[in-house]
Amino acid sequence: MDQISKVWFGPLPPDSPYVRPFRFYYVQNGVEKNWDLLKVHDSVSIILFNKTRNSLVFVKQFRPAVYLGIISAEKDYDPNNIDVKKYPPNLGITLELCAGIVDKSKSMAEIAKEEVEEECGYNVPVERLEEILTYRSGVGASGALQTMFYCEVTDADKAASGGGVDDEIIEVVEYSLDEARNLLKQGSTINSPPSFLLGVLWFLTNKAPKS
Amino acid sequence: MDQISKVWFGPLPPDSPYVRPFRFYYVQNGVEKNWDLLKVHDSVSIILFNKTRNSLVFVKQFRPAVYLGIISAEKDYDPNNIDVKKYPPNLGITLELCAGIVDKSKSMAEIAKEEVEEECGYNVPVERLEEILTYRSGVGASGALQTMFYCEVTDADKAASGGGVDDEIIEVVEYSLDEARNLLKQGSTINSPPSFLLGVLWFLTNKAPKS
Repeated sequence: MDQISKVWFGPLPPDSPYVRPFRFYYVQNGVEKNWDLLKVHDSVSIILFNKTRNSLVFVKQFRPAVYLGIISAEKDYDPNNIDVKKYPPNLGITLELCAGIVDKSKSMAEIAKEEVEEECGYNVPVERLEEILTYRSGVGASGALQTMFYCEVTDADKAASGGGVDDEIIEVVEYSLDEARNLLKQGSTINSPPSFLLGVLWFLTNKAPKS
Repeated sequence: MDQISKVWFGPLPPDSPYVRPFRFYYVQNGVEKNWDLLKVHDSVSIILFNKTRNSLVFVKQFRPAVYLGIISAEKDYDPNNIDVKKYPPNLGITLELCAGIVDKSKSMAEIAKEEVEEECGYNVPVERLEEILTYRSGVGASGALQTMFYCEVTDADKAASGGGVDDEIIEVVEYSLDEARNLLKQGSTINSPPSFLLGVLWFLTNKAPKS
């Protein structure tokens, strides 16, 4: 998964379909203020629990924004050709819930069902997707909606290996309940978004089989 | 707080200190790919529990990115002058943990201590800030670190009214433990980031007084 041989970055082209930055202006109590932000897509995420194997199903992938967040804390790098020996790209590999953006006119649950199949290889009817919580994926630079689902699967639902579509490279991983509890141990640092930790803690609180 | 009389937006100026967008390029398994993203600041967030009042202390504020996320789901608006009667700005008011960005060369705990005082008015020694979890605030368009703290306060620690510094307008609110549990009820929609829900659930699981 982490066979990344070359890394560099440059200015955002004005026609980016993914990141559309704006300056937002408003007058609050008579004072003109502004805030720089960008529009991003709404999204879904899915807590996947395999009952046959008593394990949570997560995904790992290389996230350019996380990698850049890590190397930009350093002073010593060349944006035109980042030294991948000094800064191994696997620093940018995250552990996440199965997730996807809402870029089709389908229901959130239908998009969640598709992501479960595309990323993790489980083919489940849409009725098995249980809606949990809807919140803002961000509140600072972006403010799109994210809806979190819960879905129980068994080995019998496994239809394919998963791993993403087109040129996505996604690794499907399984965590036992003890391993999942360990992720939330006080003082931990994890290359995951807060929605991942929320999903794991929500599962352990509300759905985990009692041992 | 929500006395917002005029709202409009335009292109991001190239010298924005807050939002610096890039196109990131990489070669993965021999295939050149790119990802549009932006650098944002690392941050801290603080779960604040007032033991005297048995309540969680949160903040409410107008978040331009959330407001734009809501109105941009509509077709019928003029970016040069958004109709604030049709789209009331309080749609963009969020409920969050006390939080702040890391823009000074101080420790995460020191910055957390300052935010507790500036936003919520409690003056506590830095040793009272208990580090909980560190994660990536985002993994898609941005990938900065966020460290979450827990801090118990009493009414005796209250030194000021809070509300932010400079031209910040922040409302401090208190939630009982029952009200906090209610925020996490399955099927809820909330104008809050996932780190807020994580913090509330973490508190209820690990720190809430048993009733």
